[in-house]
Amino acid sequence: MTTKSYSLIVIGAGPAGYSAAIRAKQSGAQSVLLVEKERAGGTCLNRGCVPTKFLWEAVTLAKKIKNAQNYGIKTQASSIDFSELQSKRSKLIDMNGKGLGALLKSYAIELVEGSAKFVSANSIEITAVSGVTTASAEKILIATGSLPKSIPGIEIDHNKFIDSTDILNLTEVPKTLLVIGGGAIGVEFSGIFSELGCEVTLVEKENQLLPLEDPELAEEVKKSLQKQGVAVFTGVGTLDEHIAKAQKVLVATGRKPNIETLNLESAGIKYSKKGIDTDSHFETSAKGVYAAGDVAGYGLYAYTAQAEGIIAASNAMGNKITSELPPIPRVVFSTPPAASVGAGENHRPAGNIVVGRFPFSANSMAAIEASRAGWVKIVANKENGRILAGSIFGADAHNLITIIALAIKQKATLADMSREMFFHPSLAEAVHGACEDALGKCVDLPGKKQV
Amino acid sequence: MTTKSYSLIVIGAGPAGYSAAIRAKQSGAQSVLLVEKERAGGTCLNRGCVPTKFLWEAVTLAKKIKNAQNYGIKTQASSIDFSELQSKRSKLIDMNGKGLGALLKSYAIELVEGSAKFVSANSIEITAVSGVTTASAEKILIATGSLPKSIPGIEIDHNKFIDSTDILNLTEVPKTLLVIGGGAIGVEFSGIFSELGCEVTLVEKENQLLPLEDPELAEEVKKSLQKQGVAVFTGVGTLDEHIAKAQKVLVATGRKPNIETLNLESAGIKYSKKGIDTDSHFETSAKGVYAAGDVAGYGLYAYTAQAEGIIAASNAMGNKITSELPPIPRVVFSTPPAASVGAGENHRPAGNIVVGRFPFSANSMAAIEASRAGWVKIVANKENGRILAGSIFGADAHNLITIIALAIKQKATLADMSREMFFHPSLAEAVHGACEDALGKCVDLPGKKQV
Repeated sequence: MTTKSYSLIVIGAGPAGYSAAIRAKQSGAQSVLLVEKERAGGTCLNRGCVPTKFLWEAVTLAKKIKNAQNYGIKTQASSIDFSELQSKRSKLIDMNGKGLGALLKSYAIELVEGSAKFVSANSIEITAVSGVTTASAEKILIATGSLPKSIPGIEIDHNKFIDSTDILNLTEVPKTLLVIGGGAIGVEFSGIFSELGCEVTLVEKENQLLPLEDPELAEEVKKSLQKQGVAVFTGVGTLDEHIAKAQKVLVATGRKPNIETLNLESAGIKYSKKGIDTDSHFETSAKGVYAAGDVAGYGLYAYTAQAEGIIAASNAMGNKITSELPPIPRVVFSTPPAASVGAGENHRPAGNIVVGRFPFSANSMAAIEASRAGWVKIVANKENGRILAGSIFGADAHNLITIIALAIKQKATLADMSREMFFHPSLAEAVHGACEDALGKCVDLPGKKQV
Repeated sequence: MTTKSYSLIVIGAGPAGYSAAIRAKQSGAQSVLLVEKERAGGTCLNRGCVPTKFLWEAVTLAKKIKNAQNYGIKTQASSIDFSELQSKRSKLIDMNGKGLGALLKSYAIELVEGSAKFVSANSIEITAVSGVTTASAEKILIATGSLPKSIPGIEIDHNKFIDSTDILNLTEVPKTLLVIGGGAIGVEFSGIFSELGCEVTLVEKENQLLPLEDPELAEEVKKSLQKQGVAVFTGVGTLDEHIAKAQKVLVATGRKPNIETLNLESAGIKYSKKGIDTDSHFETSAKGVYAAGDVAGYGLYAYTAQAEGIIAASNAMGNKITSELPPIPRVVFSTPPAASVGAGENHRPAGNIVVGRFPFSANSMAAIEASRAGWVKIVANKENGRILAGSIFGADAHNLITIIALAIKQKATLADMSREMFFHPSLAEAVHGACEDALGKCVDLPGKKQV
């Protein structure tokens, strides 16, 4: 068995892995091998962000069509053909997958399908359909992502008890669905399947959905699910009764690092239940071996994975940069979406902060688009006005949150935001309104407070 | 005739006027009189931004419904009932108008319907249905906005030759429409009426649509109109032939300050064809008299008018602030919308700048939303990487442009933007991609340039 040698081997072609491979090439790496067990694109493209948002887009469009008469549009009542939707979704993923393949090719990155395990800190064994090969490299990056994780007492049998991958492969909408876990994944599938005509029950063991989130935002998400017809239970102990009544049970109780088959011990790579240990350059305990993305256990987001992969690749290529990430926007695709960035008011002493709010019901574009539900909230330092955090419940929250994230990163104050020009009419203006409100002088909000 | 006295009189209840009146109250003004000849809300609410965007939203939704089968949605072909659309539009404006009325009331601002003219620098005469009254004030703000302006040889008869107000009041879609003027107003109505089934011809005397805009963006707008079926002619000299063939002619050749009936001479207020002269505090040549919004001739946008009104009111109330406005985003609601901010590459020496681009065809959310047309372009200082300008042709451009505007205002560099976290999948990521491309290292774009 001959061992081919590379400048860099990347294990896993998800957002962290493919981005790292490309950045390594951009930084002058001679040869990069990218090993992927399944399809390039990782969880995000194949079984995560992209397919779920496609389903969300479909049910959101169907709702818009129902209200089209508000624009003088004559149309028939619409319904969603689930198998047709699934086939369109599949097509979209295929198209994106092909795009990713072409992208990797343009950088002359060698993509090989197979399962990798460490032989030493600079060599791996790859098991593919065609047989077993070995490869070595000066630097190796682990970017194998994460897998759905169950809770004690519940086994994902991929039949009645399904995970977030299984649910995307259903061929018909179940009559009843129990969702265990009120995090982002649980919330999104609950809303989507409810809109698709399924009777959904969502249970969460903590006392609020999205337990780590701003309670006010979490409460809005709960109410929006209930409005969609989802039965929501928080603070739930025993599940037996709920399980008995459900045709399918989606176990959305978190994810675990995908490390079991990597044989990390052979390379002396330290890890814990949370993932592979890394330093501020995303280097592991084994010199020359890096880890980024979900497997390193930080963000569990596609975009943090990508950023981490890029940082790891840069370091592997000798350009030392540290892993300090700016405030990370978090988004849940409820109806409307819920987004936040920074540590909210619930994490800060009330005396140190000032909070501003603006409801979309006072925003012109929201009225035009019939998306008047929700609000923007801004949290700023009381003394110097620096923007510290924000949350948005409303249409386009996933784009608008970037404005607040950038304001935090660029150390903008409420006064800076007050002087910033926002196009009118746009939903973005609601961010301006919330900042003005925090300053106690929003001209588009009633005068009770001020007068 | 008794003369009632106020701390501040504001003439005109559009974005500049109503915002100034409220800010004056927020700043401690005892009594504020707001005089409005027509309905509160000005051009923007009643005959400008809001109604046109509502029509745009309607035709955009109708297009989405046509493509709903791409999401497995079964629905009938849709059509727009124009009179129904007009009635919904009217309802929306009424609702917003009522909201504005309640807002003014919450600040105890006296709103009077009538036409104002100056008697002196601190008194006006108001002609209302109920008769003529006079009012005086320490400070007066002129915020009377602007009116549609024709070109030599063409008279707006409100019958065949109509302006942007008339076109909103049409009771049926004309068979053929000639639009004179390829600025924002002309472009928007051309696209909307084409989608409504009208045969539209758009003529512009300059060699590009949106003559002051980035030529690349203007070219995209032209192509998108042509795709919608609009016949576009630029560099047009004589109009006779076009006019002869058209059932209706929309004259969209600019706007003029609304000052004719104000009797400015009696107060010693200087003005030109462009509008009322003001200093950096928006004070006119007459001490204590201010002017803001379209009538002062700067931006001719609702949001700059609002900002100017607020600055003028602050100064009138004794809080000296200058009129320095940050970069102003410009948006045209073509399909998709076109937005820009800052002076683009066509205004800068090529050697001093670096330009980055990202196409929405490489953005995941654009694929999900079926809005893969368009791109983001970023212009930065070559030496220090400071973001100088940007343009966006694509869905949600009117919101996304805020990100670039804020980056410019907060002196962000390409490196700052590179480290900024953008939620995935979101259209906003395309801004990140363009910045990465400017740095020559975008991992989501093919490697030709870099490898």
